[in-house]
Amino acid sequence: MPGAAAAQPAFDRRDPRAVRRAVRSGAHTGHTGGLAPGIVQANVCILQGEWARDFRTFCERNPKPCPLLAASAPGDPRLPRLAEDLDIRSDVPRYRVYRDGELIEEVGDIAHLWTDDMVAFALGCSFSFEEALIAGGVPVRHVAEGKNVAMYLTSIETAPAGPFRGPMVVSMRPFTPANAIRAIEITARYPAVHGAPVHIGKPEMIGIADITKPWVGDFVGVRDDELPVFWACGVTPQSAVAQARPPLCITHAPGHMLVTDCKNSELSDWGQSMGSDPCG
Amino acid sequence: MPGAAAAQPAFDRRDPRAVRRAVRSGAHTGHTGGLAPGIVQANVCILQGEWARDFRTFCERNPKPCPLLAASAPGDPRLPRLAEDLDIRSDVPRYRVYRDGELIEEVGDIAHLWTDDMVAFALGCSFSFEEALIAGGVPVRHVAEGKNVAMYLTSIETAPAGPFRGPMVVSMRPFTPANAIRAIEITARYPAVHGAPVHIGKPEMIGIADITKPWVGDFVGVRDDELPVFWACGVTPQSAVAQARPPLCITHAPGHMLVTDCKNSELSDWGQSMGSDPCG
Repeated sequence: MPGAAAAQPAFDRRDPRAVRRAVRSGAHTGHTGGLAPGIVQANVCILQGEWARDFRTFCERNPKPCPLLAASAPGDPRLPRLAEDLDIRSDVPRYRVYRDGELIEEVGDIAHLWTDDMVAFALGCSFSFEEALIAGGVPVRHVAEGKNVAMYLTSIETAPAGPFRGPMVVSMRPFTPANAIRAIEITARYPAVHGAPVHIGKPEMIGIADITKPWVGDFVGVRDDELPVFWACGVTPQSAVAQARPPLCITHAPGHMLVTDCKNSELSDWGQSMGSDPCG
Repeated sequence: MPGAAAAQPAFDRRDPRAVRRAVRSGAHTGHTGGLAPGIVQANVCILQGEWARDFRTFCERNPKPCPLLAASAPGDPRLPRLAEDLDIRSDVPRYRVYRDGELIEEVGDIAHLWTDDMVAFALGCSFSFEEALIAGGVPVRHVAEGKNVAMYLTSIETAPAGPFRGPMVVSMRPFTPANAIRAIEITARYPAVHGAPVHIGKPEMIGIADITKPWVGDFVGVRDDELPVFWACGVTPQSAVAQARPPLCITHAPGHMLVTDCKNSELSDWGQSMGSDPCG
């Protein structure tokens, strides 16, 4: 069945190296959801020169929304901390290219755009902590229902750095009180993927007027016996970058993440070694 | 000023060994609040024979309300895990003696009551985690106001063991959402002193009809920008023992705790080694 083989290229979908090889060769150009289970998938943001230096500072000042897993040396496309063979110019299935803050194109490879002052940033993603929650017996409704997490703009301001500033974006997950406590306990151990929540209950206190109307994503309800729990969201740096309008910025396309060799279960050790504040 | 010297015996109030020596000699018979700061103070419960065996099982099955720090060998008045020189017959400033569940007397020494089938249990106390909260920058209102913590009977049933059973008693502390999250993170590290909360928000879900009316202690308010946070309380085992009516039971008198040599800061390692479940 050559048609089926073309739709689903023959590679070991559980092996992160095989996934990266398939992405690199162009055999896999789709979403990374469900690939390499248990493995860290990262948000990607690539900037040049002074913009990259300011963005690094922005991440360091806002470790909860911008948990920096790794950053390349300027001009170096490798991220050996995340995977020995990783080449950031080819290992993301689909890139978005922004010029002056405008989305110009989506491409499968950025070798032709790479310059020697480019820095690639890999940021932690809530996929990792959601896996830990589910493994810990805490059901996550939007995952169970196959929906996107609900995201909201808040009145919490990020700490600015150069041109990067703006409101913190949060994701919301509803839990019973006992599960909310478990979720706080579990995610507190993962500072490299947003860590403990930033808020619980009382959405109006962080500038959310109507919880049923997320800014992005799907509202999955908050039942009478549940509390809404809010985590800092990886959309925050994307929003800050879009508003800063750098001449050139390259990111992953939504859902088309960088697959690393790191295990989610190892992330609990990461926060401090990257200089982010696990208690922040 | 001999009068002042008599009211406040001359011993180093910061040194737990000096405190125990003063208690043992009868020089100090008062409360232990404020003595030996940073040091673990424990709840004490002494039972005989089969009652002691069942009580140990009750503690093991209910580690959040009954966090067992140490238990003596039958007939052995020492608790070397807590302090090398400790003698449970003399080192509590004031004991309560219950016969068939009735309070019979308060005494300063129990050497005359000690039998060779007696087991002394030392249980963790929320003083330790409150110190950790305050050190972590999370204000605890009833402490700041010099009041007792508010305690409530709940609809949460303890896991029974022999004659010991009954509702979980909880203590309530109000916090802003951000401080509630910090409080959960901090206390989760202290399974040996009740650990993470058992409930947050929504008191009606655990059978508390009117939060302004605690069963015991002082209600210090829950403001519009606060959530009530509920921890399993060390009064739970006292309540279970009182209802079981053992022929003889000896406890510390309220506020007259056992001062150990252990540091509060060391408690974060304790939960697992005593067999209690830090995630329970």
